[in-house]
Amino acid sequence: MKVCRKIDEIRQHLQADKTSGRTIGFVPTMGYLHEGHLSLVRESLNLTDRTVVSIFVNPTQFGPREDYHQYPRNLERDINILQKLGVDYLFAPSVEEMYPPGYQTYVEVTELQNKLCGRSRPGHFRGVCTIVLKLFNIIQPDWAFFGQKDAQQAIIIQKMVTDLHLTTRIKVLPIVRDKDGLALSSRNTYLNPQERQAALVLYKSLQLAQQLFAAGERNATVIKQAMIDLIQQEPLAKIDYVAIVEMENLEELKEIKEPALVALAVFINRVRLIDNIILSLKEKKS
Amino acid sequence: MKVCRKIDEIRQHLQADKTSGRTIGFVPTMGYLHEGHLSLVRESLNLTDRTVVSIFVNPTQFGPREDYHQYPRNLERDINILQKLGVDYLFAPSVEEMYPPGYQTYVEVTELQNKLCGRSRPGHFRGVCTIVLKLFNIIQPDWAFFGQKDAQQAIIIQKMVTDLHLTTRIKVLPIVRDKDGLALSSRNTYLNPQERQAALVLYKSLQLAQQLFAAGERNATVIKQAMIDLIQQEPLAKIDYVAIVEMENLEELKEIKEPALVALAVFINRVRLIDNIILSLKEKKS
Repeated sequence: MKVCRKIDEIRQHLQADKTSGRTIGFVPTMGYLHEGHLSLVRESLNLTDRTVVSIFVNPTQFGPREDYHQYPRNLERDINILQKLGVDYLFAPSVEEMYPPGYQTYVEVTELQNKLCGRSRPGHFRGVCTIVLKLFNIIQPDWAFFGQKDAQQAIIIQKMVTDLHLTTRIKVLPIVRDKDGLALSSRNTYLNPQERQAALVLYKSLQLAQQLFAAGERNATVIKQAMIDLIQQEPLAKIDYVAIVEMENLEELKEIKEPALVALAVFINRVRLIDNIILSLKEKKS
Repeated sequence: MKVCRKIDEIRQHLQADKTSGRTIGFVPTMGYLHEGHLSLVRESLNLTDRTVVSIFVNPTQFGPREDYHQYPRNLERDINILQKLGVDYLFAPSVEEMYPPGYQTYVEVTELQNKLCGRSRPGHFRGVCTIVLKLFNIIQPDWAFFGQKDAQQAIIIQKMVTDLHLTTRIKVLPIVRDKDGLALSSRNTYLNPQERQAALVLYKSLQLAQQLFAAGERNATVIKQAMIDLIQQEPLAKIDYVAIVEMENLEELKEIKEPALVALAVFINRVRLIDNIILSLKEKKS
């Protein structure tokens, strides 16, 4: 695996691959890799000729009071993991490489970015779109892989790709969960054992939504209220939002008619966690 | 010349050219072509294997009280002109093709966009950057050509290209003027003969700046005040701004040390006109 710190370096390597007609798969990450990331990497390795993983804790997607500085980092460990999987290139640029002095260009998906997580994290998706567009322009991948865990992110990136006529195809892969149901996240490392236990309430509330839906409930308010009631029984939990929305435009639903995204963000003490499921009227795994 | 109305259509044509290793030159315009545009087209024809011109009056770069609807349009005339010059492709999409329902992705160059024209035209450069990025992504040109007439636009586009790691190279060509000095602009068609005469005050004020500079004046405030005094002698003229700024960051200069951009926007009755020159300390044409 070639580890590239510089834009010119990764570009040079990829130029040779492209000239040879090889397809490029790309998995952008902030590192501290877990099985969720690795499922994306494996898919890329299967689907494309060359796989590029990026590791970059992107400052522009963190708010001023968020956890940019505490965000877990362990590049050596990540390099070992990716090397063993057979990844071709790791792109791990510095902040200065991606945002040199005088940097000032930003991309926004103006409506979607203000829903759900966007309400409590203003500027977050602007930072995400900007770094993803920059990375896409550097790597020019045929395929890019994102996790359903960050459902809103995946929807926004797909919208950006469509609106800006990018040729990269986006593939979104299912959430990977621990045995007890907790969605994998690099931020789970912030949790002490008691908080780790309390954090199960996110998935439990989603399972409850699934059960109510399977039993025929179509009123989104009823399902949301049941979820809220369940979460509020957990003393360490504080709800940021619980929402049932249309998949495409993230608009709140009153009645569930189409495939619907049930998404929530909950603070467990100071740690903000997100999770989601898709409720589908058609028979398929949600 | 192939005239393409659809994104897929122009892309298909260009794909064949790219596979054959041909270089692509691109001249984005809003049509109603004049010699300023044509100088860009000729440069592209000289420098690249295939030349694409786009004609699209881009609604997102006009403010709500601006002249989007009145902006002059004459596609048949433009097609004739471009055909005679030997242009390979004209891309002339509809508004719906470029901004379909639900469109919501925008690009901003956050600091540069608020200087000079950005102050009186909020949102203008966001619209410009967005459409140029979209067109670049569709055409994927090796070279793109812009006029120095829109000096701030050229600087902003170059900054966007750098910040977003686009591979298109930008070439900026000199202002083309009528014999009497008026910078060519599609908006000159708005002027009646009396206004056309009054509009000469823009270039006259720039010539005055050049003369003062050549005579050794380096105090930007002194030069600006002389320009303002001259313009105010023209009863039909109302100054929007007169500025002497650094070329790179468009910051106002007090003393002219580096190559400096002298830029101004002046209303002649209701018609807003812009013009500029570069004052250079080194001996070269400004």
